[in-house]
Amino acid sequence: MFSQKRIRDYGVKIGRLETGYYNSITDVEGVTVGHVTLSDKDIQTGVTAILPHQGNIFKEKLIASSHVINGFGKTMGTIQINELGTLESPIILTNTLSIGTAADALIEYMLEHNPEIGRTTGTVNPIVCECNDMLLNDVRARFITKEHVIQALNNASSEVQEGTVGAGTGMLCYSLKGGIGTASRRMRMEHGTYTMGVLVLSNFGILSDLKVNGKAVGEELRDAILQSREEQDKGSIIIIVGTDLPVSERQLNRIIKRTITGLSRTGSIITTGSGEVVIGFSTATKISHEKTAHCISVPMIHEEDIDLAFRAIGEATEEAVLNSLVTATHVIGRNRNERPAFKDLLDKYNIQLT
Amino acid sequence: MFSQKRIRDYGVKIGRLETGYYNSITDVEGVTVGHVTLSDKDIQTGVTAILPHQGNIFKEKLIASSHVINGFGKTMGTIQINELGTLESPIILTNTLSIGTAADALIEYMLEHNPEIGRTTGTVNPIVCECNDMLLNDVRARFITKEHVIQALNNASSEVQEGTVGAGTGMLCYSLKGGIGTASRRMRMEHGTYTMGVLVLSNFGILSDLKVNGKAVGEELRDAILQSREEQDKGSIIIIVGTDLPVSERQLNRIIKRTITGLSRTGSIITTGSGEVVIGFSTATKISHEKTAHCISVPMIHEEDIDLAFRAIGEATEEAVLNSLVTATHVIGRNRNERPAFKDLLDKYNIQLT
Amino acid sequence: MFSQKRIRDYGVKIGRLETGYYNSITDVEGVTVGHVTLSDKDIQTGVTAILPHQGNIFKEKLIASSHVINGFGKTMGTIQINELGTLESPIILTNTLSIGTAADALIEYMLEHNPEIGRTTGTVNPIVCECNDMLLNDVRARFITKEHVIQALNNASSEVQEGTVGAGTGMLCYSLKGGIGTASRRMRMEHGTYTMGVLVLSNFGILSDLKVNGKAVGEELRDAILQSREEQDKGSIIIIVGTDLPVSERQLNRIIKRTITGLSRTGSIITTGSGEVVIGFSTATKISHEKTAHCISVPMIHEEDIDLAFRAIGEATEEAVLNSLVTATHVIGRNRNERPAFKDLLDKYNIQLT
Amino acid sequence: MFSQKRIRDYGVKIGRLETGYYNSITDVEGVTVGHVTLSDKDIQTGVTAILPHQGNIFKEKLIASSHVINGFGKTMGTIQINELGTLESPIILTNTLSIGTAADALIEYMLEHNPEIGRTTGTVNPIVCECNDMLLNDVRARFITKEHVIQALNNASSEVQEGTVGAGTGMLCYSLKGGIGTASRRMRMEHGTYTMGVLVLSNFGILSDLKVNGKAVGEELRDAILQSREEQDKGSIIIIVGTDLPVSERQLNRIIKRTITGLSRTGSIITTGSGEVVIGFSTATKISHEKTAHCISVPMIHEEDIDLAFRAIGEATEEAVLNSLVTATHVIGRNRNERPAFKDLLDKYNIQLT
Repeated sequence: MFSQKRIRDYGVKIGRLETGYYNSITDVEGVTVGHVTLSDKDIQTGVTAILPHQGNIFKEKLIASSHVINGFGKTMGTIQINELGTLESPIILTNTLSIGTAADALIEYMLEHNPEIGRTTGTVNPIVCECNDMLLNDVRARFITKEHVIQALNNASSEVQEGTVGAGTGMLCYSLKGGIGTASRRMRMEHGTYTMGVLVLSNFGILSDLKVNGKAVGEELRDAILQSREEQDKGSIIIIVGTDLPVSERQLNRIIKRTITGLSRTGSIITTGSGEVVIGFSTATKISHEKTAHCISVPMIHEEDIDLAFRAIGEATEEAVLNSLVTATHVIGRNRNERPAFKDLLDKYNIQLT
Repeated sequence: MFSQKRIRDYGVKIGRLETGYYNSITDVEGVTVGHVTLSDKDIQTGVTAILPHQGNIFKEKLIASSHVINGFGKTMGTIQINELGTLESPIILTNTLSIGTAADALIEYMLEHNPEIGRTTGTVNPIVCECNDMLLNDVRARFITKEHVIQALNNASSEVQEGTVGAGTGMLCYSLKGGIGTASRRMRMEHGTYTMGVLVLSNFGILSDLKVNGKAVGEELRDAILQSREEQDKGSIIIIVGTDLPVSERQLNRIIKRTITGLSRTGSIITTGSGEVVIGFSTATKISHEKTAHCISVPMIHEEDIDLAFRAIGEATEEAVLNSLVTATHVIGRNRNERPAFKDLLDKYNIQLT
Repeated sequence: MFSQKRIRDYGVKIGRLETGYYNSITDVEGVTVGHVTLSDKDIQTGVTAILPHQGNIFKEKLIASSHVINGFGKTMGTIQINELGTLESPIILTNTLSIGTAADALIEYMLEHNPEIGRTTGTVNPIVCECNDMLLNDVRARFITKEHVIQALNNASSEVQEGTVGAGTGMLCYSLKGGIGTASRRMRMEHGTYTMGVLVLSNFGILSDLKVNGKAVGEELRDAILQSREEQDKGSIIIIVGTDLPVSERQLNRIIKRTITGLSRTGSIITTGSGEVVIGFSTATKISHEKTAHCISVPMIHEEDIDLAFRAIGEATEEAVLNSLVTATHVIGRNRNERPAFKDLLDKYNIQLT
Repeated sequence: MFSQKRIRDYGVKIGRLETGYYNSITDVEGVTVGHVTLSDKDIQTGVTAILPHQGNIFKEKLIASSHVINGFGKTMGTIQINELGTLESPIILTNTLSIGTAADALIEYMLEHNPEIGRTTGTVNPIVCECNDMLLNDVRARFITKEHVIQALNNASSEVQEGTVGAGTGMLCYSLKGGIGTASRRMRMEHGTYTMGVLVLSNFGILSDLKVNGKAVGEELRDAILQSREEQDKGSIIIIVGTDLPVSERQLNRIIKRTITGLSRTGSIITTGSGEVVIGFSTATKISHEKTAHCISVPMIHEEDIDLAFRAIGEATEEAVLNSLVTATHVIGRNRNERPAFKDLLDKYNIQLT
């Protein structure tokens, strides 16, 4: 991973399960992440792309599921994921008013890689998720172009930069600077060891609610910086879950619904104005686009094994949010609006996280 | 099957797929149905039991799904079916105010067959469905006892009586006498031939809405019998779907949601006061209650094969409703309220169904 | 309305309720519809816009609901409708691969009319629905531009052209030419007379399934034209419902779910490859975007009144589908693929609809 | 309230909102709670009844909603709550295998109070919720009789005993003794001050996960008592929410979904074997059973006011769980299985909660 100081580097250990090698969604074999960052005065926005596997995702779909924690959001593509239980495109994250452009770009990318779409087979279901970065970014100007989206897809690698980067460039979290964060957990079962990976685009919460591993750091910080009045939270969070655990769509849905346990433990009350959407996929089974002559056989864990996945996703989500917060850097953006970096405040006010 | 005159015996052929041997839910290998009928003046009610397979359903669960067409109903057990995707008890149908007794009886039955429940393993999820037979039956008196429920379970066989029988004893359909009906369809796919079976407990609709294979028989009949005024529909329908098609819970849910296409073609507008609930199961995969050391492998059809199942379930539902109607007999019940038999009216007014 | 020959002009009367003045969704006060049609060789596509009321829909939102009949579709915006129960933008219909462009155009339109979006208030939830017109249209070429979308919005009027027009230009229905259709019903209740309006973009079904008011016209036609083999259905339908009935979001959801009763009666089995999505709104209550100092008071019908709405929507949906079919004209499109007009075949083979 | 030492008496203050007078669900005007407790050797079970208002709940229904956090549970009645958005009976809590008896008893109670049920009007939707108390109670013996249920209803008062009482008699929580807990919060809005009340039946979790206001008390305790090995969690939680906030069914559903934020903060990972179901009602609007001649007018808060309710319910749920834990007493039950009281361990090992 990039040499960023992450929450574990502050001595904060979330939960009891072991992390993956990178402690990142990219610990799931085949998953890569790419960013494009636009940061210049009123322009504080970007694109993040998640590639679920390195083959042709349209021809070899993955079992997938989506879950809406709170629906004040514009994520595209969940209707088909829920009906068919499969993911057939990469996932794009960007700002709210650029979803049209992002969808169009992703369609173009899929058409290019799949000449049969719209000819000998049907269309494609592009997945685009968003948060609103209007405080730091001039969101009305819609700076994102199709080229940025294609570039983010092409930038994808297994090393994930966090914080003020990609779609996270202009995002806030607990009234501080937020953005991209990731984490992972290993799950040892009788039949194998699996990985649960989470990547978040954080953009929610008010300072006084922030908890770090149970510690009311937000209140402490609010008192330290003498902030008299808190803004209303209008934020959102997008949570992408990747795993190599063999699961059915139903099981995957059960798992990704548990992201909220980790989210809650960072202090969130899931405010009304927040678009909180989870997209999950499992790389354990590839579903052929082409009709097969025989039945498909889908391996899935016995339901009694699933608690470990529930624990893993809660921990990984909590840590990914904290990583997004602690890696973010101070940004001065639109109209000279600014948001401080958590790490700077920790230093300045000598606040201990443990 | 019992020597009852069914809708096909009137020359009415619903759809284009071939029926199973019995044209019944019991064409699905292992499925049996049992009735207990109480019919004496104010007592016009009963119990119908569906056994999904002949082994121990608690230890070898089936993939299952439920769907609420309209939720003015009291069906028990759907929360767990939807969460875990499995059925672990027989299904009991009875009148609305006897669901408590039926649940208690079914629990007793399950405890007796499974001494480990509540000792070395958890509890059991009993499935009880209901319709309201208050017009013909003194429903407040709650005539159903636990013994009736156990007896219905013990009566189960592969030959299904239809019409005024079991839970259908006091039910209405399109302002006529309704009750139990069943039908099935064969589905020929590349990898095998499968059966889709449907059993309904019909208790809904007003006469003028009744359509038989597209023909507005209800209007014709209403005019013939000079019925001046139609009651408001307060009815319901329970639809039980069994199949041996290899499907995931998600696929099964997609299939059982299509019951409404057949229901709609009989003329239903799905009124507000109607409890319309579908419970479906597939016998293709048995899920062990005990945790397995390895992953489970669940065979499922490729999604491109599913349209045949959609066609089958629409046809079978439409035919099962018509069978419930045309096999029912005239009943005089509570307070001498009565409902005519469709077949008697067809004869009396010389109405052709084709 | 336009002087098109509609299904009633063929003597077909669906249901028993009275139609509105236009027998169109625009019978609901304030609702208007605009089309842009692109028809030239390989270009057979377009845009249809529905304006729910004539004021500022962002500032005065309408109670709304969405329902997925079958989710093989890419409709955008339903997550927020379901969470907040309100509609805050016009609705755009177009082809599947143009949803990105359409979303971007609709966002632009909303930004222009609402300078506070992204500045002093949050963002906007654009509603874009689609069907796939790839047989007749070169869908990969994505002919739709932002200007077409704006133009469709500006074209909106209370007179609705049907058939091969707007988003319906390249669509199919029951293997014939389909497209735009509309219908409405009056609902007389104790406390007032209300209107239920439906507009469909039809693009589903195979010929032999087509029923016209119960009559198996599709089979008759298939035999007449000696079509030996039927294609697989890969189609979709978008159903827009407008009403002035005072309803809560929950009630509206119950109503719009009943569109499937009408759809089923035209013969649909709701195939797997079909994106069938319903968006409904009620003009009876306007919800202020700005926070109010007092509670809002929402008028809603007593639940016992709702059956009339259930009947109305079933009838209007059935008739809207038939109108889309019978008004459509013969189209020769991409690669000289073509689809005949239902009305031409009725004439040619002298087929009676009644 | 009863003179029980509650979590606030240990100096633990959850959240920032003010509690109601009793810090109980009964702070919501009209809500009362009654218990029947059976505690004698192998018999460790009971019944808890919640009356949502003091009038005739069948004739004057309340706006209601249900939410399934995890569906390994047998709660009855949620299908109709979700369809119609109303509650028309008291709510009964008991053990899992007594739901049939409880439902039958509640039906009897409703019939007695409403002679028109099953005669001039339809039936009634009884709400019965459960957790599994098999460790301490001989659940297979089904000790609960109809009389116990009626007695719990008749015992209802505004003073709520907590801990090892009523349905909570045999329940566990975080491997300790659990049971009944309650809490409330005041919500000051521009248009009035409202109350959010929560009552839980707690029966979930493993010791090492327990957090008290962010403090890892469970780990500390586990180390102190040298417990070598933790059992698998097979537990559940039932959460009843009452409020006088004017809300629509949709808004109420949004609110009750946030119970999980409080639950998560006590340490829960929401295990697979857990039946976690929330039933909520608002006393602000009474919906007449009888059809009204005019539209109903339902007052609801503007959506921008709802965050305060989200905060209130998270805090009240967290505190209610902790109250259930800290008020519970040591129980030796079936087969001399036992569970210690949290409060005894705090004393014994001198563990500080703050």
